Amino acid sequence: MQIGMIGLGRMGGNMVKRLRGGGHEVVGFDMNPDSARDVDSLEALVAALDAPRVVWVMVPAGKPTESTIDNLKALLEPGDVVIDGGNSKYTEDREHAASLAEKGIRFLDCGVSGGVWGAERGYALMLGGERETFEYVRPLLEALKPEGEHGLVLAGPVGGGHFAKMVHNGIEYGMMQAFGEGFATMMKSEYIDDPARTMDSWREGSVVASWLLDLFDNATEHDPELQDVPAVANESGEARWMIEAALELGVPTPATAAALWQRQTSRGGADDILRVVTAMRAQFGGHVTKVDEIATW
Amino acid sequence: MQIGMIGLGRMGGNMVKRLRGGGHEVVGFDMNPDSARDVDSLEALVAALDAPRVVWVMVPAGKPTESTIDNLKALLEPGDVVIDGGNSKYTEDREHAASLAEKGIRFLDCGVSGGVWGAERGYALMLGGERETFEYVRPLLEALKPEGEHGLVLAGPVGGGHFAKMVHNGIEYGMMQAFGEGFATMMKSEYIDDPARTMDSWREGSVVASWLLDLFDNATEHDPELQDVPAVANESGEARWMIEAALELGVPTPATAAALWQRQTSRGGADDILRVVTAMRAQFGGHVTKVDEIATW
Amino acid sequence: MQIGMIGLGRMGGNMVKRLRGGGHEVVGFDMNPDSARDVDSLEALVAALDAPRVVWVMVPAGKPTESTIDNLKALLEPGDVVIDGGNSKYTEDREHAASLAEKGIRFLDCGVSGGVWGAERGYALMLGGERETFEYVRPLLEALKPEGEHGLVLAGPVGGGHFAKMVHNGIEYGMMQAFGEGFATMMKSEYIDDPARTMDSWREGSVVASWLLDLFDNATEHDPELQDVPAVANESGEARWMIEAALELGVPTPATAAALWQRQTSRGGADDILRVVTAMRAQFGGHVTKVDEIATW
Amino acid sequence: MQIGMIGLGRMGGNMVKRLRGGGHEVVGFDMNPDSARDVDSLEALVAALDAPRVVWVMVPAGKPTESTIDNLKALLEPGDVVIDGGNSKYTEDREHAASLAEKGIRFLDCGVSGGVWGAERGYALMLGGERETFEYVRPLLEALKPEGEHGLVLAGPVGGGHFAKMVHNGIEYGMMQAFGEGFATMMKSEYIDDPARTMDSWREGSVVASWLLDLFDNATEHDPELQDVPAVANESGEARWMIEAALELGVPTPATAAALWQRQTSRGGADDILRVVTAMRAQFGGHVTKVDEIATW
Repeated sequence: MQIGMIGLGRMGGNMVKRLRGGGHEVVGFDMNPDSARDVDSLEALVAALDAPRVVWVMVPAGKPTESTIDNLKALLEPGDVVIDGGNSKYTEDREHAASLAEKGIRFLDCGVSGGVWGAERGYALMLGGERETFEYVRPLLEALKPEGEHGLVLAGPVGGGHFAKMVHNGIEYGMMQAFGEGFATMMKSEYIDDPARTMDSWREGSVVASWLLDLFDNATEHDPELQDVPAVANESGEARWMIEAALELGVPTPATAAALWQRQTSRGGADDILRVVTAMRAQFGGHVTKVDEIATW
Repeated sequence: MQIGMIGLGRMGGNMVKRLRGGGHEVVGFDMNPDSARDVDSLEALVAALDAPRVVWVMVPAGKPTESTIDNLKALLEPGDVVIDGGNSKYTEDREHAASLAEKGIRFLDCGVSGGVWGAERGYALMLGGERETFEYVRPLLEALKPEGEHGLVLAGPVGGGHFAKMVHNGIEYGMMQAFGEGFATMMKSEYIDDPARTMDSWREGSVVASWLLDLFDNATEHDPELQDVPAVANESGEARWMIEAALELGVPTPATAAALWQRQTSRGGADDILRVVTAMRAQFGGHVTKVDEIATW
Repeated sequence: MQIGMIGLGRMGGNMVKRLRGGGHEVVGFDMNPDSARDVDSLEALVAALDAPRVVWVMVPAGKPTESTIDNLKALLEPGDVVIDGGNSKYTEDREHAASLAEKGIRFLDCGVSGGVWGAERGYALMLGGERETFEYVRPLLEALKPEGEHGLVLAGPVGGGHFAKMVHNGIEYGMMQAFGEGFATMMKSEYIDDPARTMDSWREGSVVASWLLDLFDNATEHDPELQDVPAVANESGEARWMIEAALELGVPTPATAAALWQRQTSRGGADDILRVVTAMRAQFGGHVTKVDEIATW
Repeated sequence: MQIGMIGLGRMGGNMVKRLRGGGHEVVGFDMNPDSARDVDSLEALVAALDAPRVVWVMVPAGKPTESTIDNLKALLEPGDVVIDGGNSKYTEDREHAASLAEKGIRFLDCGVSGGVWGAERGYALMLGGERETFEYVRPLLEALKPEGEHGLVLAGPVGGGHFAKMVHNGIEYGMMQAFGEGFATMMKSEYIDDPARTMDSWREGSVVASWLLDLFDNATEHDPELQDVPAVANESGEARWMIEAALELGVPTPATAAALWQRQTSRGGADDILRVVTAMRAQFGGHVTKVDEIATW
């Protein structure tokens, strides 16, 4: 099957390899002239594909995705399919789908999990959109997904793919936080000699066996106490969006939020909270100003 | 190798099978005369084993374990080994080890993970105690553990096995809570058609692939919305102990605690909190007493 | 000074009394013909006031506020002032201000705290908008606020009044949750004979002395264990908005969120989470289906 | 009435003044010869009082309190009363009471709130022990407590005074955290010009009016953004004990714990958690090691 791939970065580039490995014909384009692109413009990409075309957008969420979809709207024909495989917010998908639908262009949103391991292991794919469109592009999805029976789902209507990916990432935050809390507790305890080796032992036979634990084993192989890793973590937006969505739906997400807040705190987000606490304590403890002197009333 | 197994319930009974399958000679005893016990008293069990004996205690934590160890202390000889494979608290292990050491009896504590699946899949084992004693009983542990290279660790000194198991279970609480939060968010959202099928799709290729997710797939096979499952969860003590240990060590455990508190709340633990909140709101909102009338100031 | 008051419910009605008590001339209007309204239409209200007019909108947030402001835009003249004293979200204020500015009408948003006690005690007022407009209406605000030096602030530009009120309510959630957690802990402990009387004793001399504690004393006077109060709490949206705003600003709000989630949970929000937890436990604990039988592995 | 005061530090010293101001005869002792002590030994203190004596122990919790009570046990007579006014854990009170009871010496535990302001404002006192003993020493308590009708309670049996104080401090943690979250959110928002002035305005008329807010006003008078206050906070043990007690009682305390964990995190408690999170992310994001390069998959 033919497909146009826009965005040939780490993710897009690996996906092209997997698609070609699955026997598909891929026309790749990237804004960067130094990339391994097959054509040097969107126009050329569209011209190189037979209708009804399938174009996969794999560029950063926000402006880049939005302008790419706008440009494709001008170039594509009714019946063509645009798949947004980036990290767009689920609410944006409805706008993109509606805009493309004005010209009869079909739209799918696709959440992609797997990171750099996906090239070899296959990507877990979550789609949002019409069943018919999903079935039309299924051969391409089959080449990208892992070999087993799992790893591919039509999660819901437009937006459902990115909603599912958002929830997936929120769960991932909670799981990593849970492992982190366990490791940190063992690191401080005199009962455990080697926290990393203890965790690694759980990779088989235990209830917490998981791919994240396999990765942890990799990570601690040469640095069992993780002393070369900074005690700071970034966030990517998706857990935040999930918590916001859940707040509106009336669903508590304390574990997911604990994970996000630990990361925000590591970047200074709670500093003003602590200043208030310490300032109040200094007031009722006796106007001491040095933090180490603050009495423990 | 010879071993005496005390406690032939679901866990102990399955472990006996696995030990025998591994070529070991097991003498089983249980207080219950209807069990498949080989001898009808602790005395007979001890008499049936050659010194230095290995006796595995697999009875409920607390009084039953304590009295079993006390009885064994009276019957065993210097050099014999007692392994506590139950769910004892790590602080109790030191007392048991010290008591047995008075007679020269060696002690190991062993956290066991795997549930009913362990019979077939093997049990993840975490030990606490002396390296020499651990090596002495290793053939038995090899028969119980899974076949791969993981699933067995000497985590630390006496108490380390149960400490590791406690942390393991705390992590398990956090992971289940994380999956729960994701599922609940999808259940309430119009973007997701079938939350269970979406989660099942993550079993391969995704970052959250895990044994717990495999179990979730089993659980939702015939009840995808889990409507037959009560919205109530028990707790087993180990997450609570981990949170307490971490509190003393100065390590935050918000995700683990979120999981525990959700369970305690489901059993009414937060009822008095809510009464205070609603009573205060009624006061400043205008003395309304019916909850649905409480104004939203 | 003259003022038009739109919305004569519990809050608006009490404010009219306080304004008149402060020597101001109030023209009141309400959609409800059975209210104590002075005029029977918005047109009549506008006609009854001298330019530049001050009109206070005290109707429910959302549609009612929006349509009232739209109608006022059509009726008022350049230089007139509209104050939104309801519970609008801070993001809506900018839209309202921009719309009114098209006709030269000035806008202030005003967060109001104090509940039914405000009639007597005075209302804490937080304003957003231009300093000049704030000073113009100050005589009215002085009549509404408490007698002391506090209780009135120009918090920021348009939206700042409702932002401040939102944060105020978020703090209120956290404080009530904190009192609730303390009360609930004492209710379950054998160390405390009468939790309510113990808390009441803190009204003077203690660090937690507060108006909320005064209200708690009222609430528990005839029901010290709050057994007539349902263990369910509503939420009014403002804590939710604050958590969302803070999430975007990178500020953790775990105590505020704990309070909100406890309320959402009391209305069933966590039910699906618990179903997942219990379903998973049943899987690894041995396929038991009755919750009380679920083993505690 | 006569009383012996042991410990003349900031708290004990101020209490002596208040007791004398109330017309009581105080014999003060402190280990420190430079203190304003009236006698230079415990023996002399006991000798200076008429039986049945009342001795108030106001020394650090733990060893100092324990050895003081041991020494008093040797010196006092049946019918004498020992009051522990320090920050002992409630579980220790039962041991102390039982030990003193062997000689017929009566015991009360007393939680004291009020900090350095108590000297002037009066101390909120929470007692644990027998009603009769409480009534016997009531004249002394009346001199220490604030002038109003609140500020003194017999909370429960032995241990109840410190249990109540522990819960009081847990609530205080939650309240300070709530104020901190609100302040921090406003500090980051463009909607609020001066967060401190906005919070100060709530001191009258608002639902969150409280003594802590009064203290906040003091603290921010010359440093409205608290930039001279370190973003680090200590903890005093009592919130930790309350959370542990509540965990055992099955009562969730998420707001109290959020406050404690924010403080523990500010002292590095979560560093190992973050290392795990960042190490795992680096694994699935592509082996990047610099934190700023970690991709946001």
